[in-house]
Amino acid sequence: MDVIDVILTKRDGGRLSGEQIDWVVDAYTRGVVAEEQMSALAMAILLNGMTRAEVTAWTEAMIRSGERMDWTGLDRPTTDKHSTGGVGDKITLPLAPTVAACGAAVPQLSGRGLGHTGGTLDKLESIPGWRASLSTEEMLDVLRSAGAVVCAAGTGLAPADRKLYALRDVTGTVESIPLIASSIMSKKIAEGTGALVLDVKVGSGAFMKNVESARELAETMVAIGGDHGVRTVALLTAMDRPLGRAVGNAVEVAESVEVLDGGGPEDVVELTVTLAREMLAAAGLDGGKDPADALRDGSAMDAWRRMISAQGGDPDAELPRAAETHEVTSSETGVLTRLDAYGVGLAAWRLGAGRARKEDPVSFGAGVICHAKPGEQVKAGQPLLTLHADDAGRFEHALRALDGAVEVSAEGAPELLPLVIDRIG
Amino acid sequence: MDVIDVILTKRDGGRLSGEQIDWVVDAYTRGVVAEEQMSALAMAILLNGMTRAEVTAWTEAMIRSGERMDWTGLDRPTTDKHSTGGVGDKITLPLAPTVAACGAAVPQLSGRGLGHTGGTLDKLESIPGWRASLSTEEMLDVLRSAGAVVCAAGTGLAPADRKLYALRDVTGTVESIPLIASSIMSKKIAEGTGALVLDVKVGSGAFMKNVESARELAETMVAIGGDHGVRTVALLTAMDRPLGRAVGNAVEVAESVEVLDGGGPEDVVELTVTLAREMLAAAGLDGGKDPADALRDGSAMDAWRRMISAQGGDPDAELPRAAETHEVTSSETGVLTRLDAYGVGLAAWRLGAGRARKEDPVSFGAGVICHAKPGEQVKAGQPLLTLHADDAGRFEHALRALDGAVEVSAEGAPELLPLVIDRIG
Repeated sequence: MDVIDVILTKRDGGRLSGEQIDWVVDAYTRGVVAEEQMSALAMAILLNGMTRAEVTAWTEAMIRSGERMDWTGLDRPTTDKHSTGGVGDKITLPLAPTVAACGAAVPQLSGRGLGHTGGTLDKLESIPGWRASLSTEEMLDVLRSAGAVVCAAGTGLAPADRKLYALRDVTGTVESIPLIASSIMSKKIAEGTGALVLDVKVGSGAFMKNVESARELAETMVAIGGDHGVRTVALLTAMDRPLGRAVGNAVEVAESVEVLDGGGPEDVVELTVTLAREMLAAAGLDGGKDPADALRDGSAMDAWRRMISAQGGDPDAELPRAAETHEVTSSETGVLTRLDAYGVGLAAWRLGAGRARKEDPVSFGAGVICHAKPGEQVKAGQPLLTLHADDAGRFEHALRALDGAVEVSAEGAPELLPLVIDRIG
Repeated sequence: MDVIDVILTKRDGGRLSGEQIDWVVDAYTRGVVAEEQMSALAMAILLNGMTRAEVTAWTEAMIRSGERMDWTGLDRPTTDKHSTGGVGDKITLPLAPTVAACGAAVPQLSGRGLGHTGGTLDKLESIPGWRASLSTEEMLDVLRSAGAVVCAAGTGLAPADRKLYALRDVTGTVESIPLIASSIMSKKIAEGTGALVLDVKVGSGAFMKNVESARELAETMVAIGGDHGVRTVALLTAMDRPLGRAVGNAVEVAESVEVLDGGGPEDVVELTVTLAREMLAAAGLDGGKDPADALRDGSAMDAWRRMISAQGGDPDAELPRAAETHEVTSSETGVLTRLDAYGVGLAAWRLGAGRARKEDPVSFGAGVICHAKPGEQVKAGQPLLTLHADDAGRFEHALRALDGAVEVSAEGAPELLPLVIDRIG
């Protein structure tokens, strides 16, 4: 097999055979195909696309590049959720223990934030003592004792994807639906979950800016899941404004705990319950305990406390707080017509909540609290946002990110996407 | 400037600014832009194209990456020819001394063969003692004494192109008209010639398989030449069948000497004279001595002998011969309707005349002699081709390359491209 033939096939608009895909993914993982050859292929894939059969074969080859976890020895079905990433998207935190409280096991391998979207592991690490790295045996122990585990993927899982993702990141080849879909699904299938709910975000704060591309990505992933025997459903959900009121790390943990305590912002509660019902249905557990009840009766909170404790965290510890705050107030009285997810996410990132490079640390206390959400009435002089940072020098840079992202209008209503736009699967 | 922005601009179908091009070519030459980043950009350029302004800027940036030679101190105008490469294309050998004999100076930096097309330097190196590597001072001495010099380009000339060409070769990004045009023209302009005639080959044995793409390449290169003050003309010429009867290294030198001696195959003579007239006209020397006369009166042969001697070669030395021969005979009586350039070139390559990798040696004696050309009458049992190789084990592999490449038909005439298809400039 010759790598140039593989590149030329895709460059000239052809379809890669299963043998070509198996070979090129394996040879790339082993270093036989060079980085510059894979980047040319990735650009050709981005510009010329892949068929369903090609995407499924590509995903399969990436799964086979490493180990595949197996939870079939558990006494309950496994189910998981994956979000394509958004601003204020802390949903995994209330969701995983809620689903566990309703009888399923949630073995979630999660990631860190890069760019303006946050990472679940960064958020959980703001809880003193909590550890993201677990061995497979430790994962199994936490799953048995708490019903849910959220931790970092080991290096043995889909190493081809790990290598390819790092390459795409520096070669302008991230925004390819086949490559995004196969990257996500190879990790989730290798993770060994029996059922999967995909939360595909749409809007300025998401990778997918419009419903059409989000739908295409969702359909591609649902098809891949089905081809690999994982019951997969996707929801398209709104990411034109932040989810909830807190954007950052510790501030999002605090908001999640409010939800687990029966309170919290309406949109976070609604999305948690909707996704939990889908996860349970995909696992064959519909008709059992309802997630809304688990949030009300304290059983979700109990699962949360067991999950955090089992990974070394102290659920009662005080969360880190940033040293400095800055308030953004409304200059007018009227309706908040715009609170742009990308602008708020970028501000939180610049405040220190996210990282510019993989090796950078994050500030646990940094972030943004939104005192009003789009559609709400505000008065001139009323606080709209509170910015939190360890260093007051960051406020100016963060405020520039908010230029044009916040609008109050005397008349008119915001044009918002529905929280759940569509369901595929 | 950020390389990802540059890649995304081209990936998404935009135009690169002059600043972006200057920066990315320079940063790549210095190693600041990585190979995998340039290969993604090259693939995006291949698939999305470049405008004339972008190609001119890209060529200019590659020229500026190194030195630019200057022959304005000579007492005669400089003029050069570049061929995009073909099978049996020994034209530089009779052409350069012919043009020198008519009063122009020919400072030709030439290349080696790669793949099924031969390289001028490999052919000349079959002459015992001849040296391809000269310093700029030595080039000037040979130009003064012989009127023509054909040698290897030094590493100081267009180093960006050298690096980029090696990358394109392994990443499936060779066949891009903007990248081919800028690669050729950056070297030719840096070479310092005042006038340039491009021989753009068309057909199975050429990079350009059809007239449309050859015309596009020719027009692009003529425009670049004009933008840089080099009087540039292009001819589109036939490469559906081999040029002349000899394909290889020493065998092509022998055929070239026949032409310089007033004989040789009709097509080689016609193309030599046509290109020589264009080179002289581009140098402002039309109306002087005619190239056909220089071939008849021995003055071209005298220039050849001076040129070869000045570079250490012995023009009277016996040329290398391959140890083994194999004859391909006609199974029928009729007309030779097909002698495919690619098939013959591939056979010569497999016999040892070409190299698979840059560092491989070539066999000087290996090659193919065509005893009949398309359109000629042949009899059953008559030799059509003689294969030459140092090792008889190569014949079988070479014969497979000729499968379907040679056809004799009782009736019918070959469909051939005219030798000179068009003139641009």
